[in-house]
Amino acid sequence: MARFITFLTDFGLQDDFVGTCHGVMKRIAPEVEIIDITHGIAPQGVLQGALTLANTLPFMPEGVHLAVVDPGVGGSRRALALRDGSGRIHVGPDNGLLILAAEKLGGIAEAHELGNPEYALDSVSRTFHGRDLFSPAAAHLALGVPLAELGPPIDPDALARLDIPQPEIGTSRIHCTVLSIDRFGNVGLNLDRTHFDAAGIVPGTRVELQIGHERYYAVAARTFADARPGDIILYEDAYRNISIAINGGNAAAMFGIKEGRDIRIRLGTS
Amino acid sequence: MARFITFLTDFGLQDDFVGTCHGVMKRIAPEVEIIDITHGIAPQGVLQGALTLANTLPFMPEGVHLAVVDPGVGGSRRALALRDGSGRIHVGPDNGLLILAAEKLGGIAEAHELGNPEYALDSVSRTFHGRDLFSPAAAHLALGVPLAELGPPIDPDALARLDIPQPEIGTSRIHCTVLSIDRFGNVGLNLDRTHFDAAGIVPGTRVELQIGHERYYAVAARTFADARPGDIILYEDAYRNISIAINGGNAAAMFGIKEGRDIRIRLGTS
Amino acid sequence: MARFITFLTDFGLQDDFVGTCHGVMKRIAPEVEIIDITHGIAPQGVLQGALTLANTLPFMPEGVHLAVVDPGVGGSRRALALRDGSGRIHVGPDNGLLILAAEKLGGIAEAHELGNPEYALDSVSRTFHGRDLFSPAAAHLALGVPLAELGPPIDPDALARLDIPQPEIGTSRIHCTVLSIDRFGNVGLNLDRTHFDAAGIVPGTRVELQIGHERYYAVAARTFADARPGDIILYEDAYRNISIAINGGNAAAMFGIKEGRDIRIRLGTS
Repeated sequence: MARFITFLTDFGLQDDFVGTCHGVMKRIAPEVEIIDITHGIAPQGVLQGALTLANTLPFMPEGVHLAVVDPGVGGSRRALALRDGSGRIHVGPDNGLLILAAEKLGGIAEAHELGNPEYALDSVSRTFHGRDLFSPAAAHLALGVPLAELGPPIDPDALARLDIPQPEIGTSRIHCTVLSIDRFGNVGLNLDRTHFDAAGIVPGTRVELQIGHERYYAVAARTFADARPGDIILYEDAYRNISIAINGGNAAAMFGIKEGRDIRIRLGTS
Repeated sequence: MARFITFLTDFGLQDDFVGTCHGVMKRIAPEVEIIDITHGIAPQGVLQGALTLANTLPFMPEGVHLAVVDPGVGGSRRALALRDGSGRIHVGPDNGLLILAAEKLGGIAEAHELGNPEYALDSVSRTFHGRDLFSPAAAHLALGVPLAELGPPIDPDALARLDIPQPEIGTSRIHCTVLSIDRFGNVGLNLDRTHFDAAGIVPGTRVELQIGHERYYAVAARTFADARPGDIILYEDAYRNISIAINGGNAAAMFGIKEGRDIRIRLGTS
Repeated sequence: MARFITFLTDFGLQDDFVGTCHGVMKRIAPEVEIIDITHGIAPQGVLQGALTLANTLPFMPEGVHLAVVDPGVGGSRRALALRDGSGRIHVGPDNGLLILAAEKLGGIAEAHELGNPEYALDSVSRTFHGRDLFSPAAAHLALGVPLAELGPPIDPDALARLDIPQPEIGTSRIHCTVLSIDRFGNVGLNLDRTHFDAAGIVPGTRVELQIGHERYYAVAARTFADARPGDIILYEDAYRNISIAINGGNAAAMFGIKEGRDIRIRLGTS
């Protein structure tokens, strides 16, 4: 029996989707406690959801980890429950959403398709599997139902995977992609410290950012407080990815950018 | 003693209104567990709140069901607690908000006005009855205080009711109204499958939507996956109402519409 | 051992910041219950956060009160835990955020800097002390760790304080400042009933509001229901501050104003 279910979706909090899933889980497993990681994943942002799960699950208590970002609901994509190498259970659609986190937590030990109607609501709608299929499965798994009871096994190698955009690291130029933008306008890139090490960027290095036709000067820094107000900085964020911020400002708004946008970083401008 | 209080409002989550009500309930009934259905009802959207309660309460554990969408706060509208035919308790303003759900759950067995100051906060403000009156009442009811203790009985027939817009079903035309728009831009109508059956609309039927001066072609479908990306579909949503969606897009944004807008559906366009 | 941790931030609910802090606290103190006061404080709105804490903590169960609005994260500002005169524990940055509430609840009895790494996560990032420093401290304090264990004492007089804008009350004019705007567009001012008493404003008094170059007529009222739809009213809000509202409308949107804006109230216009 798991004490906790963590819950991540792109449902937002304006509608009743999240609350209704809570209700469904609590009817089945009244003792379980639900931790909402976030429901602010961009609509149908499967990659953003997968990255957020991989970032946050190490900070969560062990238990059942439910995630629903599901543009293919009602179609042919499978519904999944899987166990990772650390013993945690993940529930969600077979579209790559669960894979990055599971691989970070020891890999996929076993996977099953949610095929047993005994662990779904009596009537499964075509558009709200979060309520009718995934939440009931997560609640039953938290109660201790064995994974194999949920449905037939799937070869882990047959699960859907995501293409994660890879940066190009040149001698004087990095070509990277925006993976996330947070409430404060900080811009997360598909880069980590190893890429900066490879390019010779250290705190204090000055670079040029090229975003569309605009160019900006930025400086690598350890934290906001190392820069003056208004300075553009590149820093290792709290999940150890490289991000762009403006000290005291909103970088995403100033650049006018969104997830998926390409950015070029030019070195040797000091 | 009820284990759960469900909670629905138009308070939003930007301010402290919801959190403060949680605090008030937890001071009175520390053991009770609160399930937030949603706090994203449009400001003063009593009809939207009533429809959402009716849709979602069947998925919630039984208990006390607190709802506050209350444009008449501080005026002459009464404050209510009522028991439905299934034994659930509902708390909220007497403006119709609670009635649709209660009728769906067996009708109104008894209703009482919240008149007993023993079950309110010591000082009741004129503008925040959610905090000062409704939350304390819900918490005391969850602790097992009998309904009749809360205040004088009210004849259920004397409770305020809402006018729900009714569709007009013609031989080749349906005149309907937008009841809800969700995060994904899906547009909920005041129609269900019986109206489509009456009009002879089945999956695959092509229709014309007239929204203001614009016309759009749409097709009845069982789910998003039955349509091509960009297609406009009419489908039975997860609460068994007819909704309009764009496969992979945001229908409400494309149509530029809001709750309350009229839509005409014309048949015989195939 | 405290049963409850209350939690207030400017993190918003779009990202995983709040959920991740919940996870961190639950890993350390699985039995503790977290009450989210709000996470909708404007980004870096330290004064708004401090006022909201002071307003809401009296409605919260006693326990550990965690608050993070922290524009100085990663710089030289200290991290704090303090006990107020009523015995409640407050955790957050030393930027004034915690002080108004603590002073309202009996003053600051003792304060300690969060310096003991035993009560932080193993690795403390430079940009997310909410997760790495404040949440672990709050959870350990809820488990009963003595305040003095967290780090060295600080003289309460040495803690950072906020400048709260003060109104000017003249014989026929009040010069005040917008402190808050809520979801309904109600505009909270740095005024309470004592200022209105001093100026001779009672329910029914008509005044003129000067906002930038625009002038509006308004009337003092006890509640929305005392005014006609569309009337602008000045009323004592649920936290006993004077606010401006439009009955059935959104005052902030009509005036086009934000927090920090000056407003002049002229009397003698009836």
